[in-house]
Amino acid sequence: MPYDHRKYHRAPAVQLPDRQWPDRIITQAPRWASVDLRDGNQALRSPMSVAQKRRLWALLLEIGVKEIEVGFPSASQPDYDFVRWLIEEQQIPDDVTVQVLVQAREDLIQRTFAALDGVPRAIVHVYNSTSPVQREWVFGADRAGIKSIAVRGAELLAAEAARYPGTDWTFQYSPESFSQTEPDYAVEVCNAVLDVWQPTPERPCILNLPATVESASPNVFADQVEGFCRALERSGRRDSVIVSLHTHNDRGGAVAAAELGLLAGADRVEGTLLGNGERTGNMDMVTLAMNLYSQGVDPGLDLSRPDAIIGVVEECTGIACHPRHPWVGELVYTAFSGSHQDAINKSLKHQRADSNRGEPWRVAYLPIDPADLGRSYEAVIRVNSQSGKGGIAFVLEREYGLSLPRWLQQALAPIVQRASEERGGIIDAETIRGLFLQHFVRDRAPAELRGYRLSRNGRDRLEVRVAMADAAGGDGGQTEYRITGDGEGAIAAFADAWGRFSGQPVNVIDYQEHAIGAGTDAEAAAYVLLDVDGVQVAGAAIDRDTVAASLKAVLSALNRGAEQGTADAGFGTAVPKAHQQPPGRASARA
Amino acid sequence: MPYDHRKYHRAPAVQLPDRQWPDRIITQAPRWASVDLRDGNQALRSPMSVAQKRRLWALLLEIGVKEIEVGFPSASQPDYDFVRWLIEEQQIPDDVTVQVLVQAREDLIQRTFAALDGVPRAIVHVYNSTSPVQREWVFGADRAGIKSIAVRGAELLAAEAARYPGTDWTFQYSPESFSQTEPDYAVEVCNAVLDVWQPTPERPCILNLPATVESASPNVFADQVEGFCRALERSGRRDSVIVSLHTHNDRGGAVAAAELGLLAGADRVEGTLLGNGERTGNMDMVTLAMNLYSQGVDPGLDLSRPDAIIGVVEECTGIACHPRHPWVGELVYTAFSGSHQDAINKSLKHQRADSNRGEPWRVAYLPIDPADLGRSYEAVIRVNSQSGKGGIAFVLEREYGLSLPRWLQQALAPIVQRASEERGGIIDAETIRGLFLQHFVRDRAPAELRGYRLSRNGRDRLEVRVAMADAAGGDGGQTEYRITGDGEGAIAAFADAWGRFSGQPVNVIDYQEHAIGAGTDAEAAAYVLLDVDGVQVAGAAIDRDTVAASLKAVLSALNRGAEQGTADAGFGTAVPKAHQQPPGRASARA
Repeated sequence: MPYDHRKYHRAPAVQLPDRQWPDRIITQAPRWASVDLRDGNQALRSPMSVAQKRRLWALLLEIGVKEIEVGFPSASQPDYDFVRWLIEEQQIPDDVTVQVLVQAREDLIQRTFAALDGVPRAIVHVYNSTSPVQREWVFGADRAGIKSIAVRGAELLAAEAARYPGTDWTFQYSPESFSQTEPDYAVEVCNAVLDVWQPTPERPCILNLPATVESASPNVFADQVEGFCRALERSGRRDSVIVSLHTHNDRGGAVAAAELGLLAGADRVEGTLLGNGERTGNMDMVTLAMNLYSQGVDPGLDLSRPDAIIGVVEECTGIACHPRHPWVGELVYTAFSGSHQDAINKSLKHQRADSNRGEPWRVAYLPIDPADLGRSYEAVIRVNSQSGKGGIAFVLEREYGLSLPRWLQQALAPIVQRASEERGGIIDAETIRGLFLQHFVRDRAPAELRGYRLSRNGRDRLEVRVAMADAAGGDGGQTEYRITGDGEGAIAAFADAWGRFSGQPVNVIDYQEHAIGAGTDAEAAAYVLLDVDGVQVAGAAIDRDTVAASLKAVLSALNRGAEQGTADAGFGTAVPKAHQQPPGRASARA
Repeated sequence: MPYDHRKYHRAPAVQLPDRQWPDRIITQAPRWASVDLRDGNQALRSPMSVAQKRRLWALLLEIGVKEIEVGFPSASQPDYDFVRWLIEEQQIPDDVTVQVLVQAREDLIQRTFAALDGVPRAIVHVYNSTSPVQREWVFGADRAGIKSIAVRGAELLAAEAARYPGTDWTFQYSPESFSQTEPDYAVEVCNAVLDVWQPTPERPCILNLPATVESASPNVFADQVEGFCRALERSGRRDSVIVSLHTHNDRGGAVAAAELGLLAGADRVEGTLLGNGERTGNMDMVTLAMNLYSQGVDPGLDLSRPDAIIGVVEECTGIACHPRHPWVGELVYTAFSGSHQDAINKSLKHQRADSNRGEPWRVAYLPIDPADLGRSYEAVIRVNSQSGKGGIAFVLEREYGLSLPRWLQQALAPIVQRASEERGGIIDAETIRGLFLQHFVRDRAPAELRGYRLSRNGRDRLEVRVAMADAAGGDGGQTEYRITGDGEGAIAAFADAWGRFSGQPVNVIDYQEHAIGAGTDAEAAAYVLLDVDGVQVAGAAIDRDTVAASLKAVLSALNRGAEQGTADAGFGTAVPKAHQQPPGRASARA
């Protein structure tokens, strides 16, 4: 049985009962180092072409990364050539430092310095692996033997650097597989390297701590980092060392490990854009930087154009960005669920209210304003069968300027939901508008508004001409009635008139009207909720004339009520006898 | 400027200086609850069809998930119908419990219980949102008002459940947006719910703590969970409550937060397969379970067929699994870098050695044996321009049974690398073999073995017939020589013979031979490293006759040396005068 957990043993925990990191918070961004062009490039089916490398280099500069590992020039001719191109074509800005990786071997180190000949400044990053499995099974060496490889590498770096005095050199050492190395031994090896390099606070070196393979939960890594930093403090060297992290994502925790490692005292983080890298990938710089950003910490990187990042990275790696990728995936500012849509809608209204402008962002389900990343919030809400009234309302308002009252949203939602269930997918804005018009703007039949006269004398007095389908005739003819009522406003007066005409009590429960768009040409949308003989029924209308819009909205509600049979609102054969003497036959166009 | 971190404020830290969780380890798997059919389905452009839901349900059963949230039946007709199908068609195994979600509203709760009518057992999961932004901006209610929604929901659940005594009910409450809720208030609301439900250790309820939007690093969530569990302990109710976690991945830390939350005392985790879910997705059960597995903890889920999981999930969600997805992505057991390939190769040899069988797994760069997940390690190593000798050697051994000595790997690697750089991609096994044969198996020209006679009398005495291209003639003719030498073995005797013949000293530095495959028909591969007049040159040959293979390997090395001019090994015009009397003209077939 191959699937058997008993083959594996637990990563040894670190003994650090007085750890400080869980009480700390991150208040500033780390130094960022990109390994996109090295670790990232090394993990691809097709290593990047020269053109792709140049594009990725340009992107990293644009984002503001200041330390960029560009390759392994001693092991790869394309990497060598790329480094030469950067130097000879003077592609390295004054505030950017290139970094190259090399194993602790003499021939490789010599070739590495040759590759860097003439560079103004550079980080030379030497490493060897220190974990027990690497010592015993890969290198066949004991602790002393592995340490001497590191020391020899450090010596070679110092010696080679002395041969190129025109360059401002920074040395970096990685005890590769640090997180799987005994903590005391990792410190011992690093101290031996420091003994060679003799860094000072003015000329520090970098010690980079890789979780080459992520093998424990991120708190264990943080313990390891804090333990390491404390050991440096004890030896009085903490100020002379930049502690750097290099995490991988084997357990899905690369970003968390880096984040907790920063709490634990690290100064610098190596990673890649969108987490490209060997196996499960490297630490994703975009996610970590946005995590800081969303907590009010300046990330020191300009990630405001994530689509440009995604475009270049996808092109260079041949791997598509996952639609749920934190912060930048195409679905991450999309709310499908009705309650989420509703809550987003409500909190956005508050957030954008004048009184809250300039206040810290707090919107339910949206950890940041998508606009920060060049995403338009317009793209956020999709309506499908899982969506409630909030999403529907949002779409109608965004696309058509229709701001439906809550009771109308509630009435529309199940209609949209049913349509979505039948189609099994997203309902687009046009379809939602169509459903709204079809179901709630019903001001043409059975009753239609032909004209009105409004006069005010204390109260509004309204005379309305209403045409209705003939009760008797089958020729589609209409009969026009003039009905009259009084009220505090036109709507109340119309309700009064209708009540007198039909004999059914009509009460206006709620009424809302708003302009659609701006200017004198703007149309008005009116929404009305009636109680017709004890049954609630909603209606809506759109008209250039605000009074007509409101009267038509009432008619829509009455027409709907009549049709649904929920409110016998006095149409057709139900028109009271008293009114069956028509005021005159009229054509539909009269 | 929209991109501005100052709009955001830091998530408030929890005051828990005596936290215990960082000192703990996870020794057993949590109770797993899948929300694939609810949270997962709710986040899709196209909600799943009935057929897709059934496939996903079957997959969850197969994996061994025992608690499955199947939907929001009061809000969605398809969810309602699916629940009815499960019940009426008796699709729920005896050891599996379905769970349904519902808001704390009377009509919805009633419809939810109606959906569950007749189910043997079920978890009814009621929630309302408790964070300040939800209270103030979404619900417009104060702490008391929001708490009363929760209490009312709890009461409604209890009342409805009493109406269906035939079902074994479990109640679950989520203070939605728990991680953004003031800890004391979350406890207050949950205690009020417990006051209604009065759970006991025999009939516990579930309190589920969502990081509805991930808004802080995972250690902060762990502090919140530990603080919550301690509050339950203080009120004497800890044993009556199953503390459940429900994390999201907005900061890329959903798995880490769940992992640390388990350390902090939680009993249960809600998640989805491969992390599908709203926005950045839910906690990925596969990753967390494999994290436990790889630490020797029985995950309680059978994930041995990840390709089946990926297939169903991709089909149901329409979202492709990322090739770097932890544990199961297509690239995660692939090593491109030469040093990684080399280390994997070496540690695998150790791991598979008899003396280490049954020992815990420890292989550099491979946190688990890919075979556990039905992945064949055969697929692991790809060779491209970044690959070193290790990967090349691995591929030749795996595909063709050719086990090259280290010095031959070193000689072959730059040839393969150059070819890869020229082609800009992966070099397949066939091409690597071709390069190996072309460059190192050179036993035909200038010199070719025609025959040999081997006799032993204390030492081997070897007489070899060697044919060589004519030095003078341009007709491609060959001249055959008989040369004779002595040595400890055939190879040494051949070197001796050649030395006498050519006048150049030939020493054998290393020699290896092995059978390719098994059985009497197996071919032999021989590899030889010579020192010819101070220059090292390698050669190889393959033959059914082991002696012929070794002699041909020597010839290959000599031929290569002659051709490269690095060793003037006595060919052609360089053949010493003493031997220019040919022993007889021979055809190529003689």
